[in-house]
Amino acid sequence: MRIAVFQATSAVGRIDANLDALASAAAEAADGGADILVTPELFPTGYAPDRIHHLDGATVRQAVSTTAERSGIAVVASTVEQSDSGRFITATLFGADGTQVLHYRKSHLFGTEEAQFFTAGSALSSVVRFGDLSVALGICYDVEFPEYVRALAVAGADLMLVPTAVPARVSSTFDSAAVPGLIVPARALENTVAIAYANQCGTGFAGRSCIVAPDGSFAARAENEPTLIFADITSETIRGARADNPYLRSRRLDLY
Amino acid sequence: MRIAVFQATSAVGRIDANLDALASAAAEAADGGADILVTPELFPTGYAPDRIHHLDGATVRQAVSTTAERSGIAVVASTVEQSDSGRFITATLFGADGTQVLHYRKSHLFGTEEAQFFTAGSALSSVVRFGDLSVALGICYDVEFPEYVRALAVAGADLMLVPTAVPARVSSTFDSAAVPGLIVPARALENTVAIAYANQCGTGFAGRSCIVAPDGSFAARAENEPTLIFADITSETIRGARADNPYLRSRRLDLY
Repeated sequence: MRIAVFQATSAVGRIDANLDALASAAAEAADGGADILVTPELFPTGYAPDRIHHLDGATVRQAVSTTAERSGIAVVASTVEQSDSGRFITATLFGADGTQVLHYRKSHLFGTEEAQFFTAGSALSSVVRFGDLSVALGICYDVEFPEYVRALAVAGADLMLVPTAVPARVSSTFDSAAVPGLIVPARALENTVAIAYANQCGTGFAGRSCIVAPDGSFAARAENEPTLIFADITSETIRGARADNPYLRSRRLDLY
Repeated sequence: MRIAVFQATSAVGRIDANLDALASAAAEAADGGADILVTPELFPTGYAPDRIHHLDGATVRQAVSTTAERSGIAVVASTVEQSDSGRFITATLFGADGTQVLHYRKSHLFGTEEAQFFTAGSALSSVVRFGDLSVALGICYDVEFPEYVRALAVAGADLMLVPTAVPARVSSTFDSAAVPGLIVPARALENTVAIAYANQCGTGFAGRSCIVAPDGSFAARAENEPTLIFADITSETIRGARADNPYLRSRRLDLY
């Protein structure tokens, strides 16, 4: 499967312009032979919880569905969802025919602002068959928790599709470059899964979007500028890593 | 607390020579102001499960206790243990007065040879107060499992003391340099714990022993030659990392 990851900065509240940029990326990814395009967290709305939590995610999802169908490749996009049980940050995988294949509500909200304006999802992503791989969704902070990716790998995921919006620096001592540089490849290696990690970039964000192979190496990696990166991950890639590396089989489930 | 990590190659079966090398390292670590010295997995016996599983670990532990007392610093050493319940790979923390503070049996055996000659321990390490930090033990493969370090961090550990013997290359696609280079710092960061990781070196081993700060950065790091590395880790180091980084508080225990 050829995976494309779109890294860019979206303009807060300028949904039409952002959706146009997403559609252009999908067309370019399709031209590059991609089967699927992963886009950043809250790309269609812009990442600004206080300013976008009230927006209409259903309309955004409909537009992304149309983009998937027109470009002829699958698309993962992240927006907001208003429901009786709360307001959620979501990610949705649309198939190349525009149908919704997988929908997920972010379960680990990051920081006080997300917690103020959004509700945390109450379930892990599902795992679904997509092409010759089993895929699952995660959003940003979710995959920083080893428990999250482990649970999905054990549930059968081969490939994690992860919209993210990691800020440029989180605190005085925590350098957020460690998230794409250290945490994400460690998650891939310790679970023998591939991870497609699509970040926003620019002055406010860490960039460094990546596609990590199941041995923890970078199959593709961006710096901190708008770009589209590609990598091929197949069921053979996953099988080979799991034949060589028994992490999933060596766990001591009686101890923890 | 000043931590010293001893990286060297031990000669298989030459216990007296290896214990002499360990005693010299303890004296040098004490001269360097260390409060504790961490030494590699099976350093006193040599790392060769098929050739050392029958050796007398009790005599080794007595010798290391004497070394700790003579050097006036705490020492972590790894050897074998014969008991009614099996033969174990162990790590023991001796206080600066030579008393045994903590003893642990490796619970994640690595590869077919360790499994053939040893019994896997049936418990996690305990966590004990040592100076102004809470410390726990782990041995090599143990800390490659996020569950292991997470459980001990949740139990209160600030600092993991880890004898290890990571081979130079594990398989055709798994580059073992990723263990000290990627997995160990990720464990530190995701748990806001420090890790003192003492590896064997030379042609058969990966070297790259390290002391990792609780923000995932290398406080000290070796290449692949015999050396003694030092770093200072205090309760303030740990508190600062945990004030900045809420990983331990942000887990969704209802989901996994």
